[in-house]
Amino acid sequence: MSNLKSQIRVAILGYGNIGRAAEEAIKAAPDMELTGIYHHGDINEQMVNDKMVNDIDVVLVCTPTREVQKFATVLAARGICTVDSFDIHGQIWNLRENLDAVCQANKAVSIISAGWDPGSDSMIRAILMALAPKGLTYTNFGPGRSMGHTVAAKSKPGVKNALSMTIPLGTGIHRRMVYVELEEGADFKAVEAAILADDYFAHDETHVIQVESVDALNNVAHGVNLVRNGVSGETHNQRFEFNMTINNPALTGQVMVSCARAALRMKARGDFGAKTMIEIAPVDLLPGTKESLIKALV
Amino acid sequence: MSNLKSQIRVAILGYGNIGRAAEEAIKAAPDMELTGIYHHGDINEQMVNDKMVNDIDVVLVCTPTREVQKFATVLAARGICTVDSFDIHGQIWNLRENLDAVCQANKAVSIISAGWDPGSDSMIRAILMALAPKGLTYTNFGPGRSMGHTVAAKSKPGVKNALSMTIPLGTGIHRRMVYVELEEGADFKAVEAAILADDYFAHDETHVIQVESVDALNNVAHGVNLVRNGVSGETHNQRFEFNMTINNPALTGQVMVSCARAALRMKARGDFGAKTMIEIAPVDLLPGTKESLIKALV
Repeated sequence: MSNLKSQIRVAILGYGNIGRAAEEAIKAAPDMELTGIYHHGDINEQMVNDKMVNDIDVVLVCTPTREVQKFATVLAARGICTVDSFDIHGQIWNLRENLDAVCQANKAVSIISAGWDPGSDSMIRAILMALAPKGLTYTNFGPGRSMGHTVAAKSKPGVKNALSMTIPLGTGIHRRMVYVELEEGADFKAVEAAILADDYFAHDETHVIQVESVDALNNVAHGVNLVRNGVSGETHNQRFEFNMTINNPALTGQVMVSCARAALRMKARGDFGAKTMIEIAPVDLLPGTKESLIKALV
Repeated sequence: MSNLKSQIRVAILGYGNIGRAAEEAIKAAPDMELTGIYHHGDINEQMVNDKMVNDIDVVLVCTPTREVQKFATVLAARGICTVDSFDIHGQIWNLRENLDAVCQANKAVSIISAGWDPGSDSMIRAILMALAPKGLTYTNFGPGRSMGHTVAAKSKPGVKNALSMTIPLGTGIHRRMVYVELEEGADFKAVEAAILADDYFAHDETHVIQVESVDALNNVAHGVNLVRNGVSGETHNQRFEFNMTINNPALTGQVMVSCARAALRMKARGDFGAKTMIEIAPVDLLPGTKESLIKALV
């Protein structure tokens, strides 16, 4: 790793799946150096204040999503840029409002909800709306594990381990395939009924399947099929489709690292504040000069 | 159409297929009014200077691509924003450099090469590179008419009319299907040989087919299949695909109109200069407030 002063100095706060993936993406980036990894369990807001603000340009906040705001706020208040992958869709605007004020006052940039959905999918949805302003967009997820649904299934009495897979059925409708490993003596029919009655599952087609080992099914693959059929001007039936099949934490970590670069570029231009990914120009996500990128990509 | 002062006042310069499509997109936009249509054949640079600079926020330059620079330069020199769909890939950086200086000096914004390729495809390519920095991207075009190849085929002696269709074969390789309508007494074999020897066709699989009427084949449909298989961090085989099947001029006109909005937003922020679409934040392409757009799209 180079120690050139022009390298972006990046720290990681939180070292789970996403933090580890972000570490790999930082090491692969030609313009970044990793200055530190802080385990989420080892640190609190005061320690962030005391220990993390020297020689760091940007912190990737890879903590559980509900702890993003407190850490990002402490860092932004010290003028440190942050990137997070906050993923509670209904609370994104609130987070942006709260962090924006802190960033503006302290000349920092916080890129929020920087994953693949919310995140890069949001950029695709915005672009497709610009290409065909009237029409319908459907985002179909999977096949892949849903964390929220998996946690809900695991919470039922008698469940030792569970995995809820999201299966896309088109037009934004999803099937839930729930694999459960039972505790000794547990009644499968009772577990199945408890899962089907849970609000997480009650509105979707859900199948509960008993397995010997949930661990044997472990796979971080995920996918997206995002479709829009819309109208450009007065012309109907303009059809667009974006597909991906990806390793989930690897993509999330990579998106955060690309956004760390954008945060520094925006800060250098005096464009302070909290930003979602639809507020980022794609060129700012990439290493290299505008000249080389425009010549290669436009 | 509203005359509210907050409406963006847009004029069209050049009234061919793209100009007409742009007119439809302006009329469909909730935040724009069309202030004038100037036929390219009726106007020169002096007349632009005399007639077009009052009560216009942005001009869509829908002239032939080789005349974009002279008109955009005159307009930018008067502080008027412009949007064009300049499409000679190898000359885009040059156009940007030349226009950028004029824009910076006169507090204007010119969005250049704002179509679908170059244009929105460029944004997708940039985003996919940010998601998986190492790997290969292939842009496959068609099925659809290639203007450049059609003009080359039409130029051959004995050809009354021609149509060159681009057929995607994957990995950026294309087949050319050339439909020719011959002048009376022309020799098909000679026409075929002349087309196959042309540098436009010599490097691709090309089939020349004689038809009674080229007009009977007329269709402005086009398509894109853009694929990337790349590496996020250290994780290989991250797969992405963007597809569209569209009406070509309708999409180009719509993209230009969405970019007109972005030009005005960037000008309002003092972010002057010539910009390609990878330098635009997707949110700036869309009507409405940031709050409503972030809540709907992120």
